[in-house]
Amino acid sequence: MRAKKTYSQADLKKVINELATTFADRIHLSQSICDQHGQGEDSYGCIAPDAVIYPFSNEEVAQIVTLCNRYKIPVIPFGTGTSVEGHLLALNGGISIDLSEMNQIIEINPADMDCRVQAGVTREDLNLALRYDGLFFPVDPGANASLGGMAATQASGTNAVRYGTMRQAVIGLTVITPQGDIVKTGTRARKSSAGYDLTQLLVGSEGTLGVITEVQLRLHPIPEQIRAAVCSFDNLAGAVDTVINTIQLAVPIARMELLNALQMEACINYSKLAGYEASPTLFMEFNGSEGAVKEQIALVEDICSEFGGSNFKWADTTEARNELWTARHQAYHAALNLKPNSKALTTDVCVPVSALAKSILKAEQDALASGLLCPVVGHVGDGNYHMLIIFDQDNADQEHKAKELSKAIVENALALQGTCTGEHGIGFGKKDYLLKEHASAIGMMKSIKKALDPNNIMNPGKVVDL
Amino acid sequence: MRAKKTYSQADLKKVINELATTFADRIHLSQSICDQHGQGEDSYGCIAPDAVIYPFSNEEVAQIVTLCNRYKIPVIPFGTGTSVEGHLLALNGGISIDLSEMNQIIEINPADMDCRVQAGVTREDLNLALRYDGLFFPVDPGANASLGGMAATQASGTNAVRYGTMRQAVIGLTVITPQGDIVKTGTRARKSSAGYDLTQLLVGSEGTLGVITEVQLRLHPIPEQIRAAVCSFDNLAGAVDTVINTIQLAVPIARMELLNALQMEACINYSKLAGYEASPTLFMEFNGSEGAVKEQIALVEDICSEFGGSNFKWADTTEARNELWTARHQAYHAALNLKPNSKALTTDVCVPVSALAKSILKAEQDALASGLLCPVVGHVGDGNYHMLIIFDQDNADQEHKAKELSKAIVENALALQGTCTGEHGIGFGKKDYLLKEHASAIGMMKSIKKALDPNNIMNPGKVVDL
Repeated sequence: MRAKKTYSQADLKKVINELATTFADRIHLSQSICDQHGQGEDSYGCIAPDAVIYPFSNEEVAQIVTLCNRYKIPVIPFGTGTSVEGHLLALNGGISIDLSEMNQIIEINPADMDCRVQAGVTREDLNLALRYDGLFFPVDPGANASLGGMAATQASGTNAVRYGTMRQAVIGLTVITPQGDIVKTGTRARKSSAGYDLTQLLVGSEGTLGVITEVQLRLHPIPEQIRAAVCSFDNLAGAVDTVINTIQLAVPIARMELLNALQMEACINYSKLAGYEASPTLFMEFNGSEGAVKEQIALVEDICSEFGGSNFKWADTTEARNELWTARHQAYHAALNLKPNSKALTTDVCVPVSALAKSILKAEQDALASGLLCPVVGHVGDGNYHMLIIFDQDNADQEHKAKELSKAIVENALALQGTCTGEHGIGFGKKDYLLKEHASAIGMMKSIKKALDPNNIMNPGKVVDL
Repeated sequence: MRAKKTYSQADLKKVINELATTFADRIHLSQSICDQHGQGEDSYGCIAPDAVIYPFSNEEVAQIVTLCNRYKIPVIPFGTGTSVEGHLLALNGGISIDLSEMNQIIEINPADMDCRVQAGVTREDLNLALRYDGLFFPVDPGANASLGGMAATQASGTNAVRYGTMRQAVIGLTVITPQGDIVKTGTRARKSSAGYDLTQLLVGSEGTLGVITEVQLRLHPIPEQIRAAVCSFDNLAGAVDTVINTIQLAVPIARMELLNALQMEACINYSKLAGYEASPTLFMEFNGSEGAVKEQIALVEDICSEFGGSNFKWADTTEARNELWTARHQAYHAALNLKPNSKALTTDVCVPVSALAKSILKAEQDALASGLLCPVVGHVGDGNYHMLIIFDQDNADQEHKAKELSKAIVENALALQGTCTGEHGIGFGKKDYLLKEHASAIGMMKSIKKALDPNNIMNPGKVVDL
């Protein structure tokens, strides 16, 4: 694919020259840097922007956006580049705004358990800064993503089942509008009914309504006790039924991750996990006071054994827990490692928990019929799972089959009143699914996009087409 | 005040005649019914709409709105009329859509702990319907409000500290747009990153972007154990410090309500509470498993006694709890009862919990200086409290003083990074405060309003002026 540009090279040159007076060596035109900013960690390939700029402040971002808006040149916000839905493709050309130099932690308020950070701060950096206050920021999508990017894609991850997603975590934003206004949304109060909730409109807007430059976040106290456990099952149905029952009993479990047999095999090989079986497995974590954790564990152990769980193993030391969650976080690379020269099409459906068995078992059945390798990892406590559909990148037939399988999984999820994306966003890749999922609402979404970004310069071609 | 109408009487007549063919005796023009729909439970008085209609279905609401939009006649959604910010005033005339006949519980999904209801279902009706499933809907603003109205104003109440507000409770909506489209937002999945979050944009939009006709809600299991307690304090500072410390220790307390000495006196007299003191008091509730409740209570009792709490009383029977929470819910009427011929100006600020002492103690000081009677009730676990400023309704000087005091409380809350409204909404009464609180964001709010409701027919004159 190539960029479809609607602006002239002369205008682009004018804009870049004008920006060069402010940004000097912070504006980059080299192919390698542009290429690096034109792709995420997905299989959509690369469409490079015309330039990459590293601003330091809200005012600098406003300056870039104002100028680009005048000449109708697209801008694409860039965090750490870990998107998996083609968010970074410069479909209509334009300038990538790399926010990694906006990496200051502006304030931490331990007494109210909130903080304010610039958009380029990563979640690991934030947690490092928080550790002396006995607090942590829970949202954990696996990648060490930037908090601005996580807000933009409404990310979540392994412990959303207990602590919520970015939707619950973000209580305010600073955003630069396409007109170059610096807008502050939200307050530091725990709740507010003051006007339209722009914070929540911008969370998940994927850079299409403005550039997020600061994020106000809710934090949590580090739990008194953290215990992790692994339990393997004879079959996938047993593992999924364990999840459904745990959630229906409202056990406040902190993480509940499912790996199917193939994914376990991949992880055991890739992360050198010793003592685990290549069978359907749940990775679990319990947080809370000593008493609360004890209660939760007793309940979940009962449920596990009722549904054929065995080989219940504890990972109680920090090292054992880290080994476990590192293996979980490496699942994607482990999966790719199953087959040389392969790519993965990552699905991201989320269904009501009661429909989880139906959804996953149907997906497994379809996967089997396709003949493709399909490891599954999932934040199943939320009803969200990823089937990674592995295909040979030089085999068009396999690629076609992978796309058909992905489509079938999404359509089944929608029929079960679920969503095509639990946490990765729409980006470039899921626009057709969004049309299907929110057929009646797409008109309102387009009206909002047109009203806030009439020149369609903010990450165009993502979420909705105008 | 009188309505400022921009449409002709001839057009209004045309619209009403056309609607009469569908709605027959469900369209009302009598002054008494119109008056009843032109006011809430506040001190803004009444501006009656021209007509009141009781639709049964989404399609009927769409029919009304489409026709009104064609003739640019305002529509004002009406739930149970318990708004306290002038939401129901027909400032520009128009038609009140009373949703009380849309009172069907569409589905309850116990396995996923969610449900879908028509907008006119009240929270008490819903809880009645849920009791056999062991579930409950926690958001409790005191009044038996409709769930559509609660979504529209982003209501909360006594147990938001534990269970969140309508923002967390609403996972999807059906809304009728000003163009008469029936739009469904959200899914039944626990999370989604699919497009702009219209659900969250509409929650708290106060009927200015569309008419909410159906609400999908998250439910909670009825806790194994519920224990309520009352603790009185020598002074307000001690009670507030108890709250701050409880929240900072992240105790998952279910309710934590503060009443100042004057409010306690009012409640003791009005609700005939026996055995309580007219001193600053916390009403608390603990929910959870037996073990969890025990842990929470031990912690909070310690904190209470550290800050001068005494006379710790348990209300463990259902009757005793009901007496307690009924008295709390009657606080407004109890306050009005303090003085004959009085009105109350209800404030609704919410501040970061760490700033709660500063905010309340300053408000008490200002209240003392004003010479007015000012009982205080508050959802203080959230940093939200209501000072009810009582004034003689025939005394202009007192009314002026009340408004000045209210303004001072809001300005102080904004200086402390809080909000002018924790749960009542902006409505007609707090538009100036919204301009101050979200100065940089008001332009975006107006753009959205103009884009979605270009004829400004949806509850005009509320939230933002165009």
